[in-house]
Amino acid sequence: MEAEFQRWLRAHVPFHASFPLGLADDAAVMRLATRRNMVITTDLLSDGVDFRLDDKDLDPQRVGRKALAASLSDLAAMAARPLAAVVAIALPREPGSAEALRLAIALYEGLLPLAAEFDVAVAGGDTNTHAGPLVICVAAFGEVTERGPLTRSGGRPGDQLLVTGKLGGSRGSHHLDFTPRVREALLLHQRYELHAGMDISDGLALDLSRMAAECGCGAVIDVDRLPLSTGALIRQALSDGEDFELLLAAPPDAADAMLRDQPVACAVTCIGELTAGEGLWQQTQDGQRQPLIPTGWQH
Amino acid sequence: MEAEFQRWLRAHVPFHASFPLGLADDAAVMRLATRRNMVITTDLLSDGVDFRLDDKDLDPQRVGRKALAASLSDLAAMAARPLAAVVAIALPREPGSAEALRLAIALYEGLLPLAAEFDVAVAGGDTNTHAGPLVICVAAFGEVTERGPLTRSGGRPGDQLLVTGKLGGSRGSHHLDFTPRVREALLLHQRYELHAGMDISDGLALDLSRMAAECGCGAVIDVDRLPLSTGALIRQALSDGEDFELLLAAPPDAADAMLRDQPVACAVTCIGELTAGEGLWQQTQDGQRQPLIPTGWQH
Repeated sequence: MEAEFQRWLRAHVPFHASFPLGLADDAAVMRLATRRNMVITTDLLSDGVDFRLDDKDLDPQRVGRKALAASLSDLAAMAARPLAAVVAIALPREPGSAEALRLAIALYEGLLPLAAEFDVAVAGGDTNTHAGPLVICVAAFGEVTERGPLTRSGGRPGDQLLVTGKLGGSRGSHHLDFTPRVREALLLHQRYELHAGMDISDGLALDLSRMAAECGCGAVIDVDRLPLSTGALIRQALSDGEDFELLLAAPPDAADAMLRDQPVACAVTCIGELTAGEGLWQQTQDGQRQPLIPTGWQH
Repeated sequence: MEAEFQRWLRAHVPFHASFPLGLADDAAVMRLATRRNMVITTDLLSDGVDFRLDDKDLDPQRVGRKALAASLSDLAAMAARPLAAVVAIALPREPGSAEALRLAIALYEGLLPLAAEFDVAVAGGDTNTHAGPLVICVAAFGEVTERGPLTRSGGRPGDQLLVTGKLGGSRGSHHLDFTPRVREALLLHQRYELHAGMDISDGLALDLSRMAAECGCGAVIDVDRLPLSTGALIRQALSDGEDFELLLAAPPDAADAMLRDQPVACAVTCIGELTAGEGLWQQTQDGQRQPLIPTGWQH
C-alpha cells in the first residue's frame, strides 16, 4: 500500500513555502522566518476511545480533521501561531489493503482543508498497518508571538476566569467538528493582558484544577454563569471532555474589557475567579458554596 | 493512570535548558539558539509489527529506546543535529492499569538514556490507553548544520554509493538495539562532500531505488562488496529492513577520501555507484550483471 499512498500524498498534499523540499526525504526541512521560540505538541487518537469508526454517521474524514484540530487546540492554548504538522497513522490491517488505502486517504482529505484554513504545512508522516484499531497521531509545531507563550502558571489570586464559546455536551458532534480556537487565542493574547491559559480538553473542572495547581491558587466557579451548550446540563459543562474551548485567567481590568468588547466571533464569558486559598469551589447566585470535584476525562 | 504517570514524568524527565518551561503546559516551548532550518520527522511503532511484547526476551525498555532511535535515524539521514522529541503512546487497556503504568514507565526508562546520549530534550507527550496493541509514536526535531540538509535527491551519475556499518540480519536484535548514525552523519557531512543520503530502514535495495529515483539516476550494486552482518546472506543485506545504517552518494574523490580515512567508529564501505541509465542492477566481481529487484519492507 505504501508506494500507492506515497503517490497520492505527493499529488494531494500542497506545496508550502516553509518546506521547499516537499515530501521526498526521511524528514522535513522547515525554513524558519523568525527566531521566535517554537511550540511543539503531540496528540494521539484511537478508534474506540476518541471516535468510533463503526458509527454509521462517522465519515473518517472527520477523524483526520479532529486529529489535527486537537493538536492545533494545544497550540491555541499557548497562544502560538501554527506552522506545521506531521501525521503518523496505524491503519487496521483488516479488512484489507484497498480499504486501508481508502481510509488513509479519507483521513488526509479531512485534515488537509483544516491545515489550509490555518496555513499549516502538512510536512510529513508515517503510515503503517497493524493488527489493531485505527490510531492517528499528529505532532504540531508553531511559534510564539511577540507576546511570548501563554502558559498555565501565570494566574494570580483575584484573576477572573474566562472561557470562550459554550461548554458541555461535546460528545454529540462537537468533539469531531470543533474549530480550534487559534484565531481567538492569538487575538486575545495580543490585545489584552492574559495571565494564564489552556484548552479545555478533559473537562472544565479537571482542567481548571490543573491550571489552579500550576498557579498555586484555588478557584471558585459561579455555576449559574457557565455558558451551556444547547441542551447541556451544568454537570456536563463541568466535566464533559473535549469542549476544546479556551480557559483563561486575566486581571479584572482586562477581563472587564474583554467582556465589554466581545472581540472574537464566539462569546467570552466570565465563569469565576482564582483565589488565594487552596481548593476548588462552585457557588450559586444565592450564595451557596460547595467543593468542586475535579472530575473529567482521565486518560 | 494519567495523574500518577504525570507525576512520574515530572520526577524523571530531566530539565533541558532549551525547554525552560518544562512539562507543565498544553505544549512545549523550545528556545532556539540559532535560526537554522528545522528538521522534523515522526515514526510510529506497533506491537506485532515493529516488535513483539510477548517475546520473553524483550524488555519493553528496548521498545521505548527503539522508537526514539528510529526517529533520530531519520534526523541522521538528513545530517541534522537532534534537539527534541515528543512521545505519544497508546497502551493496551488489558490486563489493567497497574500494568499499563509499568509499561509506560518502562518505555520512558528505555528512551531517556538514549535522549541523554544525544542531548535530546524529551519535551512532552500524550499517553492514553486503548483496546489495541501498544503503539508508540515519536516525533523528533533537529536543526540543519551550516552545511545545510543532506537530501535524497542530490546524487549524480558516477557518484559512489557508500554505507556505514554492516547490513542484513537486523531482525535478530539489531533492529531493537541499534544506535542511530547521528554522529557519523554529522561528521561525514561536515568533512566530506556528500551529494545524497538517507537511512536504510526498509532494506538496501528498496531504499536505494528511492534514492536513485529522487536523483533521476540508475544504480549498480557490487554484491561482493556488501558489508555483511555476521551470519547474514547477500539476499538479506539487500532486502532486510531496519539496518538503520546510512546510504550515501558522494563524488569519487570524496568517496576515496572517506574510504581511506575511515573517519567514524564503524566501517564506511563502497558498494556501487549511481549511473546515467535508468534501472537498478546488481553485479558480481566476475562481471555478471542482473536486475536488482527493489524488495524490502513495504509498510
